[in-house]
Amino acid sequence: MQVSLECVPCYLRQVLNAMQHGEIPAEEQGKILDQILLEIPQLDKTATPALNSSLLLHRLQEMAGVGDLFQEAKEKSNEQALALLPLLREMVSEADWPLELAVKLAVAGNIVDLGILQDYDLEASIRQVLHEPFTIYHLPALAQDLRTARKVLIIGDNSGEIIFDSLLVEQLLALDLEVTYSVKAGPILNDATREDAEAAGLPRLCRVIDTGNNFLGVVPERSGQEFLQAMAEADVVISKGQANYESLEGTELAGEKTYFLLKAKCPLVAAHLGVELGDLVLKKNDLRR
Amino acid sequence: MQVSLECVPCYLRQVLNAMQHGEIPAEEQGKILDQILLEIPQLDKTATPALNSSLLLHRLQEMAGVGDLFQEAKEKSNEQALALLPLLREMVSEADWPLELAVKLAVAGNIVDLGILQDYDLEASIRQVLHEPFTIYHLPALAQDLRTARKVLIIGDNSGEIIFDSLLVEQLLALDLEVTYSVKAGPILNDATREDAEAAGLPRLCRVIDTGNNFLGVVPERSGQEFLQAMAEADVVISKGQANYESLEGTELAGEKTYFLLKAKCPLVAAHLGVELGDLVLKKNDLRR
Repeated sequence: MQVSLECVPCYLRQVLNAMQHGEIPAEEQGKILDQILLEIPQLDKTATPALNSSLLLHRLQEMAGVGDLFQEAKEKSNEQALALLPLLREMVSEADWPLELAVKLAVAGNIVDLGILQDYDLEASIRQVLHEPFTIYHLPALAQDLRTARKVLIIGDNSGEIIFDSLLVEQLLALDLEVTYSVKAGPILNDATREDAEAAGLPRLCRVIDTGNNFLGVVPERSGQEFLQAMAEADVVISKGQANYESLEGTELAGEKTYFLLKAKCPLVAAHLGVELGDLVLKKNDLRR
Repeated sequence: MQVSLECVPCYLRQVLNAMQHGEIPAEEQGKILDQILLEIPQLDKTATPALNSSLLLHRLQEMAGVGDLFQEAKEKSNEQALALLPLLREMVSEADWPLELAVKLAVAGNIVDLGILQDYDLEASIRQVLHEPFTIYHLPALAQDLRTARKVLIIGDNSGEIIFDSLLVEQLLALDLEVTYSVKAGPILNDATREDAEAAGLPRLCRVIDTGNNFLGVVPERSGQEFLQAMAEADVVISKGQANYESLEGTELAGEKTYFLLKAKCPLVAAHLGVELGDLVLKKNDLRR
């Protein structure tokens, strides 16, 4: 998915949001933003939005001299999700089709804005999300593919959300599948890293790898061998969130085995998927030939 | 009201929106946007958002070589509002307090997104808007001030909306007030100009003047003598929309005689007013001493 001019205001909103999270002093924020503005025209206009956004966020990290602007926010979102885990696990175990509920919870984790809602609201919000219909819902195809699969790769998205995903990992393990879960090799926005995987207890369940970089989405030319090999060996890939969709949709790398699980939070992603803004999607990759 | 870093993504959205309205070819849009990005760091960080936005929109007009990117949109919004005028006038004449309904319709014109809704929806939307409560509602003070006033100046905002305002002008004339209505001296976004005032039939009702420039809001150092004199002579000023609020609130120029009538469409303006995003406001100017 290619960038559009409409991505530019969003790059800036992400940068501003990251600086606010990192509590960068106001004057320094102004200087950093000015520098970012000067660098936007130099970005590749044929890249994915995720890639260009990453380059700007890396420049921000460099200039701010803070390793992880979202550290506190990420820890808080993990804590909130962990507190809910026993309830969520019970919901899955009591479901008619536990795999389906685990898939829905995995997208619920992407929707619920952890760190903002009170615990009480959070529980209510999750129950509400579970009743939202998906606009594209290739679950039957995914279930069919999983029946003959041996290796599954989940490409993770945010912190907090990763804890919801652990329930999906448990369901895949119950189907006797070999599961690998990938996180980022370094901080970028509130994306899950190894620390978040550990907070979620994922290493006790399955193999945890990283993409080999700290870019939003997947950037093949910057990906580590371990990630690329996991991608090649997987019989089914479950790719979470918008940035992974932006960078993998239509590609040979994703192939016919990749399913995108996300909420369309951006008008361009929604239009690309042919859905409305805010819609839920579980979509098998359309391979461009 | 001073600019904030959060205004920067909005500047760009306005530029993108204007280019789309003006049907500038995609490649040219990219070049113009790149140039605008390079110029943002040079803006005065103590100016008002309206002023900085205006400077960028003027640069866009220069580069695009198109006089008025919103001409078609403005004509359409005037047509739609004119078609409703008989109904609106009837509503005012039947109201318990016609002045109050005219004030509410003047803000309704600012809310209803003309040119998007069907006529049928538009009528329903207006009736709905008229039932929305104002969060700040200094109508009693305004009515009191009008009782002893002789000259009233209305500082207009958008096309389409100007036609709704003509009903307020009629009500002020019925109170035997001398009314002046100000528009922009040239095109900027969808702000009302003399052409729009003529479409609204305003010159037949009252004196129509222009601000002497084509900046969003009011810029005293670029304002014409006629506008500044009208401002000085007015016993009551009714200032419509966000840009006029941004540039006039708290100033000696606006003084204690100015009332701001607007919907808070931007989080910063809402915070500045102490209201929620989307709230309706009729507020007497708080003079900073």
